[in-house]
Amino acid sequence: MKRILILNGPNLNLLGRREPEIYGSQTFEDYFETLKPLFPEAELTYFQSNHEGAILDKLHEVGFSWDGIVLNAGAYTHTSIAIGDAISGIKTPVIEVHISNVHAREPYRHHSYISAKAAGILVGLGLKGYELAVRALLA
Amino acid sequence: MKRILILNGPNLNLLGRREPEIYGSQTFEDYFETLKPLFPEAELTYFQSNHEGAILDKLHEVGFSWDGIVLNAGAYTHTSIAIGDAISGIKTPVIEVHISNVHAREPYRHHSYISAKAAGILVGLGLKGYELAVRALLA
Amino acid sequence: MKRILILNGPNLNLLGRREPEIYGSQTFEDYFETLKPLFPEAELTYFQSNHEGAILDKLHEVGFSWDGIVLNAGAYTHTSIAIGDAISGIKTPVIEVHISNVHAREPYRHHSYISAKAAGILVGLGLKGYELAVRALLA
Amino acid sequence: MKRILILNGPNLNLLGRREPEIYGSQTFEDYFETLKPLFPEAELTYFQSNHEGAILDKLHEVGFSWDGIVLNAGAYTHTSIAIGDAISGIKTPVIEVHISNVHAREPYRHHSYISAKAAGILVGLGLKGYELAVRALLA
Amino acid sequence: MKRILILNGPNLNLLGRREPEIYGSQTFEDYFETLKPLFPEAELTYFQSNHEGAILDKLHEVGFSWDGIVLNAGAYTHTSIAIGDAISGIKTPVIEVHISNVHAREPYRHHSYISAKAAGILVGLGLKGYELAVRALLA
Amino acid sequence: MKRILILNGPNLNLLGRREPEIYGSQTFEDYFETLKPLFPEAELTYFQSNHEGAILDKLHEVGFSWDGIVLNAGAYTHTSIAIGDAISGIKTPVIEVHISNVHAREPYRHHSYISAKAAGILVGLGLKGYELAVRALLA
Amino acid sequence: MKRILILNGPNLNLLGRREPEIYGSQTFEDYFETLKPLFPEAELTYFQSNHEGAILDKLHEVGFSWDGIVLNAGAYTHTSIAIGDAISGIKTPVIEVHISNVHAREPYRHHSYISAKAAGILVGLGLKGYELAVRALLA
Amino acid sequence: MKRILILNGPNLNLLGRREPEIYGSQTFEDYFETLKPLFPEAELTYFQSNHEGAILDKLHEVGFSWDGIVLNAGAYTHTSIAIGDAISGIKTPVIEVHISNVHAREPYRHHSYISAKAAGILVGLGLKGYELAVRALLA
Amino acid sequence: MKRILILNGPNLNLLGRREPEIYGSQTFEDYFETLKPLFPEAELTYFQSNHEGAILDKLHEVGFSWDGIVLNAGAYTHTSIAIGDAISGIKTPVIEVHISNVHAREPYRHHSYISAKAAGILVGLGLKGYELAVRALLA
Amino acid sequence: MKRILILNGPNLNLLGRREPEIYGSQTFEDYFETLKPLFPEAELTYFQSNHEGAILDKLHEVGFSWDGIVLNAGAYTHTSIAIGDAISGIKTPVIEVHISNVHAREPYRHHSYISAKAAGILVGLGLKGYELAVRALLA
Amino acid sequence: MKRILILNGPNLNLLGRREPEIYGSQTFEDYFETLKPLFPEAELTYFQSNHEGAILDKLHEVGFSWDGIVLNAGAYTHTSIAIGDAISGIKTPVIEVHISNVHAREPYRHHSYISAKAAGILVGLGLKGYELAVRALLA
Amino acid sequence: MKRILILNGPNLNLLGRREPEIYGSQTFEDYFETLKPLFPEAELTYFQSNHEGAILDKLHEVGFSWDGIVLNAGAYTHTSIAIGDAISGIKTPVIEVHISNVHAREPYRHHSYISAKAAGILVGLGLKGYELAVRALLA
Repeated sequence: MKRILILNGPNLNLLGRREPEIYGSQTFEDYFETLKPLFPEAELTYFQSNHEGAILDKLHEVGFSWDGIVLNAGAYTHTSIAIGDAISGIKTPVIEVHISNVHAREPYRHHSYISAKAAGILVGLGLKGYELAVRALLA
Repeated sequence: MKRILILNGPNLNLLGRREPEIYGSQTFEDYFETLKPLFPEAELTYFQSNHEGAILDKLHEVGFSWDGIVLNAGAYTHTSIAIGDAISGIKTPVIEVHISNVHAREPYRHHSYISAKAAGILVGLGLKGYELAVRALLA
Repeated sequence: MKRILILNGPNLNLLGRREPEIYGSQTFEDYFETLKPLFPEAELTYFQSNHEGAILDKLHEVGFSWDGIVLNAGAYTHTSIAIGDAISGIKTPVIEVHISNVHAREPYRHHSYISAKAAGILVGLGLKGYELAVRALLA
Repeated sequence: MKRILILNGPNLNLLGRREPEIYGSQTFEDYFETLKPLFPEAELTYFQSNHEGAILDKLHEVGFSWDGIVLNAGAYTHTSIAIGDAISGIKTPVIEVHISNVHAREPYRHHSYISAKAAGILVGLGLKGYELAVRALLA
Repeated sequence: MKRILILNGPNLNLLGRREPEIYGSQTFEDYFETLKPLFPEAELTYFQSNHEGAILDKLHEVGFSWDGIVLNAGAYTHTSIAIGDAISGIKTPVIEVHISNVHAREPYRHHSYISAKAAGILVGLGLKGYELAVRALLA
Repeated sequence: MKRILILNGPNLNLLGRREPEIYGSQTFEDYFETLKPLFPEAELTYFQSNHEGAILDKLHEVGFSWDGIVLNAGAYTHTSIAIGDAISGIKTPVIEVHISNVHAREPYRHHSYISAKAAGILVGLGLKGYELAVRALLA
Repeated sequence: MKRILILNGPNLNLLGRREPEIYGSQTFEDYFETLKPLFPEAELTYFQSNHEGAILDKLHEVGFSWDGIVLNAGAYTHTSIAIGDAISGIKTPVIEVHISNVHAREPYRHHSYISAKAAGILVGLGLKGYELAVRALLA
Repeated sequence: MKRILILNGPNLNLLGRREPEIYGSQTFEDYFETLKPLFPEAELTYFQSNHEGAILDKLHEVGFSWDGIVLNAGAYTHTSIAIGDAISGIKTPVIEVHISNVHAREPYRHHSYISAKAAGILVGLGLKGYELAVRALLA
Repeated sequence: MKRILILNGPNLNLLGRREPEIYGSQTFEDYFETLKPLFPEAELTYFQSNHEGAILDKLHEVGFSWDGIVLNAGAYTHTSIAIGDAISGIKTPVIEVHISNVHAREPYRHHSYISAKAAGILVGLGLKGYELAVRALLA
Repeated sequence: MKRILILNGPNLNLLGRREPEIYGSQTFEDYFETLKPLFPEAELTYFQSNHEGAILDKLHEVGFSWDGIVLNAGAYTHTSIAIGDAISGIKTPVIEVHISNVHAREPYRHHSYISAKAAGILVGLGLKGYELAVRALLA
Repeated sequence: MKRILILNGPNLNLLGRREPEIYGSQTFEDYFETLKPLFPEAELTYFQSNHEGAILDKLHEVGFSWDGIVLNAGAYTHTSIAIGDAISGIKTPVIEVHISNVHAREPYRHHSYISAKAAGILVGLGLKGYELAVRALLA
Repeated sequence: MKRILILNGPNLNLLGRREPEIYGSQTFEDYFETLKPLFPEAELTYFQSNHEGAILDKLHEVGFSWDGIVLNAGAYTHTSIAIGDAISGIKTPVIEVHISNVHAREPYRHHSYISAKAAGILVGLGLKGYELAVRALLA
């Protein structure tokens, strides 16, 4: 059975509470419960942290044995060279996801240190993006 | 029945012949034949042109009545404000797709005049990106 | 009798349908019918194309014998060095017009490859700008 | 009867004496005498100052009761955020005029702090631009 | 009784030891003891961390129920989009404080990802700035 | 008795009339009447001008003998090196104040030629900022 | 017998009429008649279009079987990533030619999207550059 | 007898009081008394203003009949396009002088809008620079 | 006996596993065992963390009493102003080390927030760089 | 008989030894022996130096009497304003040659201080470029 | 007796032959003969070289014992950090001179690596600038 | 026996005389005498020149047979693409050394054209850096 990690970065624990006009009003935990049954052939695990270091630790932990990672690094996307380096350093493919259309927001959200290292990128599709990312990893 | 247009821009007619190490060796027409049966609930149409004006004409033609457009504008992605304007001007949602990971290539491929206007963006997933884009439009 | 060409570029055929809060809800054809009788001393002709090449062809065609051109090149204003070159290459004076105030919109609309070659520029005056441009050409 | 202010900024008092190959050899006062009779339906007033502060004072003075302002702020166009702010702060519409084609001159003349706040912009039409600006304000 | 958090970021635990010619020689804890009695109407709490993630966690923890946050994010001010996002995501107003005049120091200290989201900004007033910030929050 | 000057720059005479959604609807003179009684230990004087030169003259006049200046230079903040130089040249400490949060507005309002020379900076606290600035000067 | 295409882009049909002080007064067709007899060992063909799309179509048409292409893409040189991509995508070597010295003209003519993909570049040698380019292709 | 104007801009009235480590401790009036007797063949006049507009007015007043102007525009050097334009507009030659070495100070003092229009530039020679400038004008 | 800390930042725990063509295939722990006996006169300690905050905490902990720090901050080198500030704030000298030649890699690795504060910098010498850094600290 | 100088700059003496995958393995002296007999109507001379000053001296020496110069200034192309000035200062036409395609290499090789002054430019044609340059000079 | 070196850089040996509309038609040697008798109290020596290294050698040779250097470094002004360093390294004061107004020419002539280190700068005064520079050194 | 060249660039002959607060007061020749006996297993040779061309000549001379080069190119580090090219062109490894911490000085000293080609870089370690560089070459 394939193991897939869904890894969310800073402030994504506020989902459902934070700026609902941009991010919607559903919590990620609720969404995750609807996501898992769509993929009976895979074991989906969810992890969130506001700590850049904890995200790095987690990438290292699963990145040599699991089958795929769906990563929404939140604001660290735009500032963390270290996360980009971690993706280069591990073996598990990583797909980058953003819930909102970052290209329609502030210019400092248009650049990602992760994209060049990612196996694919999905932007602006709402929570649906996570499902499609898992689908791509399993394809 | 939902009508979806798949619209490819310049040089994508070379698919299968052009730089196969980046774009793969399958022609888009071949791929399109495998794509259509995946969506029996939709009518998929394919159009390709090397002419920026022809892409604009096509967006105008279908953009007030069809249900979705999957657009890979190729190199015009990075230079055509006009295509971005057309997407703003029409009513049909447009999802932007790139076969290769444009963020891992030359810097002038990192900016898109289309992204800010798109209903979603899928990058670097190969031809699979078109299928996921249709899936998102039908969701 | 003086011959004046009114030449519109990409997406301006959508006028009346596209973003009416920016461009108004009248089609250009309707407006053109109200414009012609204001200038009985001139023969006004209207041409629109979404094709940069067709705009160039038209500039070449009339640009050595007609008396004036009112050009709204739409988004090509900001990306087409070729149209700027065509204006340098022909003999008929060209006045640049923009319906909306491009300087109050995205930064990439603030630069024009046409302005430096134009005999005059009118911005943000709505459709009224075309009338004033013709007036300036006939002066 | 409509009240229109024509407001000229620094060095425009030199008109007729300064760089006639760019600005022509007519003084503005002479031109103004030919302009007034064209608009019997309006009361036209002319004011010029080399002082940024005096231009601000004048904008404030007329900007809540008069019907229109034609502003050629000269070099302050490119350096005065304060004049741009004054235009935002008053209620009378302001049309920006430049006698020469500033876009064909030094790069530092290509940006205007006024344009984004103006009700319209006319560039490079010589003194004729003032007449067309009044016409637009009265329309 | 109103609850106010004073939240200090990286290296501010060195206050009193670090570069006293810039930051003074008093520890923040000492200062905090002199600050509390000035505001009998409020409950002041102090938290410091060198961890960006811990600052985020703390903002989330108090940011939906407390009455105000005085934030000196230290060097994270200039690099952390995530903290700016957290401020957007919570409901408690945040006032940004800097002890030294960051605008008189290196250019990379002139930009703040926090300022645009803050309810107010106080710079260069020494430790006095914290007191004035609390005063503003209570006003 | 300490002498404090409150010095306002261009367009601040419009306060109460200009863009009330940004600056509020109270005139500064009204506010000043409420401010003075808060500081019985000081003599507060108010001066406003739209003229950069008059602001310089005033800074020179009081800057070698008075006890403090609260300066809101309005738009000159972003364009006047001369005012910054005047602050360096005089001996009285100057605190910079902005009513609105300039960092949340246009990019050209993010830089100040005054900040590096100021004894402190208060931004975005509304008219309350003036009171806190006086408080800091008297501390 | 070797097949060589000479491919001219926008405005080059004006040669002889357009800015003769830069481009000379001979039409390209006249020049082409003097060029052909210099290369009896090759079949030279000439094609010109103002349409970017038509240039792409032509490159695709001949680019897998002919022996060489001499390309003067005119103003598209500086704006067309698509033409650069087409050169990467085809197999026939392409030599870039410019009649005038583009590096002695406006800065926006100093960059070429074609050069990095070209087998060689000849600039500023007038029409002679075409002859030398053919000579290089046949070498 | 030749008439020469020495024209000083903002803050130069502080000379002798302002930052003496940069500008020295002599007032300009004192220096001017020592300067005049060096040039018995010329009539030297001194004018200083903190008002950009007053500097423009003065340039216009003397600029068509006097024999030379020595201009130290102070901080307006770096911000006033209007003063540069005035120099272009008048006929009297203008020599630009700076007391301190502006190129060894902040980067925003490295650019001058006046230099390109000046008949000569002398920088960093202290008050001696004024004498040498007069000498150059009389040569 | 002198106390020296060797402090490694994010992803350096992957050494031996991550991109061995850049970083070699030895783990740092193995290397550290060979390093210690080279310096019998010093006590060498090794610490690694992926957490920026933990690196700051460690710098504070040892930075007022130990004799030297060899710091390879990994990707935080290029993004962490806070680490640069910590080095300024402590008293122990810090030598910056990079295993690979960062100047031969992506442009965003060419700038370091640490270098300007470091007592020395060694780049591109492989693991040998740590030894030489210790040698320099002990000199 | 026409006199032509072939002038090579720094590191071109390494030709045949240096990076043969870019520059080929033939020495320039060998190539020069094959070049001379192609032009019996001209006297070809070859000079190489690694010294910028020696290149300037040589340009001055021949630049008022010889008939043409083929210049490959190597890396000085991108850094030497002095060589560009020398070309402006002499009378003999200079054609710039680069063996490799500098536009396909590092960005700092894309700009040339020589191109704007050259009578023509040939890039990326290998040693063949020298022959074509001589041909152009003799034409 | 004071010793003064006049040191000219690249291409200044062409004076009188090179671009006389910019630099005049007198050779520097001729001018130098007219310069010497103006300063009987000083020993003037002239040296010119096209070699950056020779200029450095000369600065080192005289820079610890002579009384002044007038340096026109020609194009090396804009590219040579080494000459700027030499000026910092020696003790003799150096005055920078440019014959033409470099600020009215190409942008790359607007920056000088020498100015920040110079004891004074004279620009655009023709050969007269050398005389005034000597005068300043002797003052 | 291994042959190592220590190659110093411009102004380093002033060591001991030039800016001793930055570079110390020892001449390099004195230091070199203390360096040689540290490496009995190697033959160390020292060469210094202020001429970029002489540095290139020396690199070519030893660069195909000696065992290592320690290069401190002084100011040429930041301006000489040619020296960078020479390092690419030769076979002997080159280690770049700077005595002072160039990253703590002017921004134009932060970039090196040599670093990307060097086998290692040592910065800010004083003369000790040369010793460590030799040590690295011999390792």
